[in-house]
Amino acid sequence: MRPSGRTASQIRPLTFTRQFTAHAEGSVLVEFGNTKVICTASVVEGVPRFMKGQGKGWVTAEYGMLPRATHTRNDREAARGKQGGRTMEIQRLIGRALRTAVDLKLLGENTITIDCDVIQADGGTRTASITGACVALVDALNFMRAKGTIKTNPLKYMVAAVSVGVYKGTPVADLDYAEDSNAETDMNIVMTETGKIIEVQGTAETEPFSFDEMQQMMDLGRHAIREIVEEQKRVLA
Amino acid sequence: MRPSGRTASQIRPLTFTRQFTAHAEGSVLVEFGNTKVICTASVVEGVPRFMKGQGKGWVTAEYGMLPRATHTRNDREAARGKQGGRTMEIQRLIGRALRTAVDLKLLGENTITIDCDVIQADGGTRTASITGACVALVDALNFMRAKGTIKTNPLKYMVAAVSVGVYKGTPVADLDYAEDSNAETDMNIVMTETGKIIEVQGTAETEPFSFDEMQQMMDLGRHAIREIVEEQKRVLA
Amino acid sequence: MRPSGRTASQIRPLTFTRQFTAHAEGSVLVEFGNTKVICTASVVEGVPRFMKGQGKGWVTAEYGMLPRATHTRNDREAARGKQGGRTMEIQRLIGRALRTAVDLKLLGENTITIDCDVIQADGGTRTASITGACVALVDALNFMRAKGTIKTNPLKYMVAAVSVGVYKGTPVADLDYAEDSNAETDMNIVMTETGKIIEVQGTAETEPFSFDEMQQMMDLGRHAIREIVEEQKRVLA
Amino acid sequence: MRPSGRTASQIRPLTFTRQFTAHAEGSVLVEFGNTKVICTASVVEGVPRFMKGQGKGWVTAEYGMLPRATHTRNDREAARGKQGGRTMEIQRLIGRALRTAVDLKLLGENTITIDCDVIQADGGTRTASITGACVALVDALNFMRAKGTIKTNPLKYMVAAVSVGVYKGTPVADLDYAEDSNAETDMNIVMTETGKIIEVQGTAETEPFSFDEMQQMMDLGRHAIREIVEEQKRVLA
Amino acid sequence: MRPSGRTASQIRPLTFTRQFTAHAEGSVLVEFGNTKVICTASVVEGVPRFMKGQGKGWVTAEYGMLPRATHTRNDREAARGKQGGRTMEIQRLIGRALRTAVDLKLLGENTITIDCDVIQADGGTRTASITGACVALVDALNFMRAKGTIKTNPLKYMVAAVSVGVYKGTPVADLDYAEDSNAETDMNIVMTETGKIIEVQGTAETEPFSFDEMQQMMDLGRHAIREIVEEQKRVLA
Amino acid sequence: MRPSGRTASQIRPLTFTRQFTAHAEGSVLVEFGNTKVICTASVVEGVPRFMKGQGKGWVTAEYGMLPRATHTRNDREAARGKQGGRTMEIQRLIGRALRTAVDLKLLGENTITIDCDVIQADGGTRTASITGACVALVDALNFMRAKGTIKTNPLKYMVAAVSVGVYKGTPVADLDYAEDSNAETDMNIVMTETGKIIEVQGTAETEPFSFDEMQQMMDLGRHAIREIVEEQKRVLA
Repeated sequence: MRPSGRTASQIRPLTFTRQFTAHAEGSVLVEFGNTKVICTASVVEGVPRFMKGQGKGWVTAEYGMLPRATHTRNDREAARGKQGGRTMEIQRLIGRALRTAVDLKLLGENTITIDCDVIQADGGTRTASITGACVALVDALNFMRAKGTIKTNPLKYMVAAVSVGVYKGTPVADLDYAEDSNAETDMNIVMTETGKIIEVQGTAETEPFSFDEMQQMMDLGRHAIREIVEEQKRVLA
Repeated sequence: MRPSGRTASQIRPLTFTRQFTAHAEGSVLVEFGNTKVICTASVVEGVPRFMKGQGKGWVTAEYGMLPRATHTRNDREAARGKQGGRTMEIQRLIGRALRTAVDLKLLGENTITIDCDVIQADGGTRTASITGACVALVDALNFMRAKGTIKTNPLKYMVAAVSVGVYKGTPVADLDYAEDSNAETDMNIVMTETGKIIEVQGTAETEPFSFDEMQQMMDLGRHAIREIVEEQKRVLA
Repeated sequence: MRPSGRTASQIRPLTFTRQFTAHAEGSVLVEFGNTKVICTASVVEGVPRFMKGQGKGWVTAEYGMLPRATHTRNDREAARGKQGGRTMEIQRLIGRALRTAVDLKLLGENTITIDCDVIQADGGTRTASITGACVALVDALNFMRAKGTIKTNPLKYMVAAVSVGVYKGTPVADLDYAEDSNAETDMNIVMTETGKIIEVQGTAETEPFSFDEMQQMMDLGRHAIREIVEEQKRVLA
Repeated sequence: MRPSGRTASQIRPLTFTRQFTAHAEGSVLVEFGNTKVICTASVVEGVPRFMKGQGKGWVTAEYGMLPRATHTRNDREAARGKQGGRTMEIQRLIGRALRTAVDLKLLGENTITIDCDVIQADGGTRTASITGACVALVDALNFMRAKGTIKTNPLKYMVAAVSVGVYKGTPVADLDYAEDSNAETDMNIVMTETGKIIEVQGTAETEPFSFDEMQQMMDLGRHAIREIVEEQKRVLA
Repeated sequence: MRPSGRTASQIRPLTFTRQFTAHAEGSVLVEFGNTKVICTASVVEGVPRFMKGQGKGWVTAEYGMLPRATHTRNDREAARGKQGGRTMEIQRLIGRALRTAVDLKLLGENTITIDCDVIQADGGTRTASITGACVALVDALNFMRAKGTIKTNPLKYMVAAVSVGVYKGTPVADLDYAEDSNAETDMNIVMTETGKIIEVQGTAETEPFSFDEMQQMMDLGRHAIREIVEEQKRVLA
Repeated sequence: MRPSGRTASQIRPLTFTRQFTAHAEGSVLVEFGNTKVICTASVVEGVPRFMKGQGKGWVTAEYGMLPRATHTRNDREAARGKQGGRTMEIQRLIGRALRTAVDLKLLGENTITIDCDVIQADGGTRTASITGACVALVDALNFMRAKGTIKTNPLKYMVAAVSVGVYKGTPVADLDYAEDSNAETDMNIVMTETGKIIEVQGTAETEPFSFDEMQQMMDLGRHAIREIVEEQKRVLA
């Protein structure tokens, strides 16, 4: 039995609040149960130095957590003077995932910066971030098209993500903190709306896992992501 | 005429949402019109090294802004590797203001860390932070008393703050961004519920101001803070 | 009775040594009693990136303390790898105060950097810095006019500063360290030679203060600054 | 056809040079073709603060690249003043992989630090690092047993890693730089000698990949790792 | 002919102002012509961690330059966030030189920190620093003996330093900036009052130098230091 | 008797392995007995900002040590977030020494960066670095001439270095770690193949040394460097 009483494949209640804050071109509060992340997409003209002169755009991401998003307070990274390894790892993942979904040629020499800031954490913050960021990205791209900055939609496909894992011997989808902190295995899957894989990261937390377990987790992930994409589309319709 | 159509002494709609996030001992979303700040108060046993062995507690604060809380995106301080001068100045102000309101002896050897994170900025973020932080602090102190960590309430008085300024030659209260960015003078006032001053910081932005103008701003501040304290008390009742 | 035997409104012996060091366009050692600060004004052509192309100049300031300017040695900020919050706060204050006094249009696209380095501290280092910096600034502007870099004097008015406070219940002017470290309230006032306010920062150190006390401190500040400006003018004559 | 002329499943010549440097308890030069990494394992008594008092040991890893290990020179991270996101990601991966393989109880309150320093890079530096580090770890554990620091071998199983990917539409094993920089998909697999998975990280570089492709890559990885483990055992025999 | 009109072996006017600032146990302004350095010696009980429990003291040094000590303004190291290589090199040299002169056993478990801050630079700041620091050190040791912290004088011998070099083909002593910036060779010599060498650092700036030239520079240094030590002793008498 | 059984003037077995790694324009493993350093020379077009427009090239150096190059593990500088004073001192020395040997006019607007990374330390790493770097530099210059980037060889003379010292009262050449850590005096000498001095740095570790001892050390250095240059030339022939 899962601590939350969910079935193995059941994901948490999922909501997206668009235009959550006022200034960003795209701004979404995404909630996977008690995990809450503010995702904004900011558009600026021009590209970073290393991309200049290629006629292509750029998509990048940054990730943060409010110090008390967690059970006990974490040091503020700005005060410590550097982002930790976990933060770097996550923001690189978010950036890669969304960049893959965008035709950078069609974006023109513009940069979209995605900021994912966790205001409340209950497991799965990186997959929630990717999922919410994709909605914010769509809003920002729509803003650009409305303004005439771009003509064609550069989005190749919606992107969504979920965590899966083996908890007390059973593969389960969308782990909350109670599960995540006790799971034998933890896997984050990022997929397109067309059912293809953008990124998969599986880690044995306590015990190595078999090819069979991996297969089961992948299947759980595929089904969960199908559901999540539907919700993304519904809220964007 | 003020851009918002308010009268000179009229403050913006003010709301406090207590228990805005789940984990902190005190967690408040404070809104002064479109300025929105998440204020959390985190309690831990023990005090910083320089306070050890005095039988007294400590109250400190940190301040941050989500990168896209503002009209255009600001660099993330964690990514830049240091907090800017403005951030330092503000968090030192918040810390001083709340520390003054607490009897550190009665707090015992415990530390309360206030985090003020601006998720949407429209002027007056530092005064909103102090005002919201005081409500979060009260919730945290109540939590400590309920748990038996402390016996007596260490809060000496409620603390609230407001910005006042001279806009187009007229002293006005609670400036929003449209006013703040064009004001001749900007003054932040922190007061107790008993009408005494904890901190006052007035800055000539374009032209030096007279003792008379200062007097008028102080009076506007006093009235505004009286209203704000009432709302703090109402929401805590 | 004040520890120094001064009357409530009496400021410490004040001296300015112009051309204290050889290389800077303006270089002043300012002494308020035992507080000694080297203030230099350095002129360079051009302005920082954010000011480019506006046909205006820039004035900025940095502040430091020799490690053993104080009773016990403080860590060297260069060795610690960052400037502390107090330093940042002070240098921002000095920069704002002097910038207000200069017509940046008349300065042309030139930058003046004020460095205030405390070699001996006995309270009031930030107000001494502003006061000495103004004299160094005048010398640097004179240098520019002599060299023909600028035609018209861009200085709108002399600027001076003093600290006032409530010590053992009595408002006093120009606090030394013995008073400052025990004051109930501490207020820094920056004014023009014409008696207008550029900046006022009052902080309740132990107890909040009343509007009345504030009024008395402001009056003390006004008189002290009048005296200080006279001395600035005398030394520049 | 692969640039190197290898078949799809063929790995590069693999060599381990034990005792490559003199001072470390374990020191191995691992070569996967032209990728060369110095892996050292350093043993010290005691554990980091967060592990104290649990009667358990700790295994951690750091990763670096000589500036000119690559085709063009990279900035030295020590000179830049911070480790980049890629470095952090890799050293966290190496640490997790080896930690999983060690029974920390049997290690006692000792810490083993693995340093992987790439002296020449030609693709697959992180998987080569893990593979070489495991041999250095075995040498360090043998050293501890010989010295009597530990009684029982804490190693649960050998660990090895390989990169697989889809290059010009074909899944291939052990990508060199020429392939890696043009692959559609890149996957790093870490496994135990018993054929179980410790970590899998697959990334779509240009196009998302299918479940089928993933399956094929996993199979290639499994076979390659079997070979690699054999070589590890041969060299340790 | 030297720019200053001095003879080859002639050093600049040398003055020491003891008790230059009020708080330090030793505080000396040293002037070699227009080079002016404030040297303070601060005494604290206890030693750094790596020296604990050996019954010995520690002597260390830090070096800095006011931003406008030089012809054009240098960035403030505290603002840049790190000490440059030149600063590190110099402060390590000062520390080593003085440490050699002190019997650390006789110092007991106390630490003396020497701060050398250049307020005006005209060549030879590092040798002036060492020379002035030795006088400040003597004052600090006298303070400790007067207070009874130590019984026996731990100073083994006075230490002084001078720069010598080859300027336009001629070896000269005590180079000023005009010479230093054009010298073919620059050598810093640190010696004891007894004529022994503590440190010698010679650098070919444009052309390598011969053993002969080295010999001549060493001889010039020896004579100069004899004079300098006499002045140190005179001022301390 | 020296711990290694060598005579006072005998240097350790010296080997150079050219083309030690594949990518750098010059890449040399230099071994002085058990001290092993990888020296690479990297060529790029263009010069740093401060050298622009002078029609001259630039030569610079960086130095590092693998964490476990030493008897006990040292913290990785990249992880600590800064290079230590010793590292800075050494890399500045290497850069100066090689820059002196190159006619920067003949180099054209190109930059050569020397990286010296110690993989095993047994005393004399800085002198080994300079000696090996010179061979790598020659290879890089040959590469440039072969490619036609430069026409004339800009190398003015070979450069080599050795450490000498006073060990148990006797001057000895090429100290290993056992000697170095117990020497009374330590001196690093950098010379040209023509027997002139580029840099000399002598430090009294425990006792000041006499002019006589200095003379003896210089003579030992001269002879050792003559031998070392011969070996450099032999391996480059």
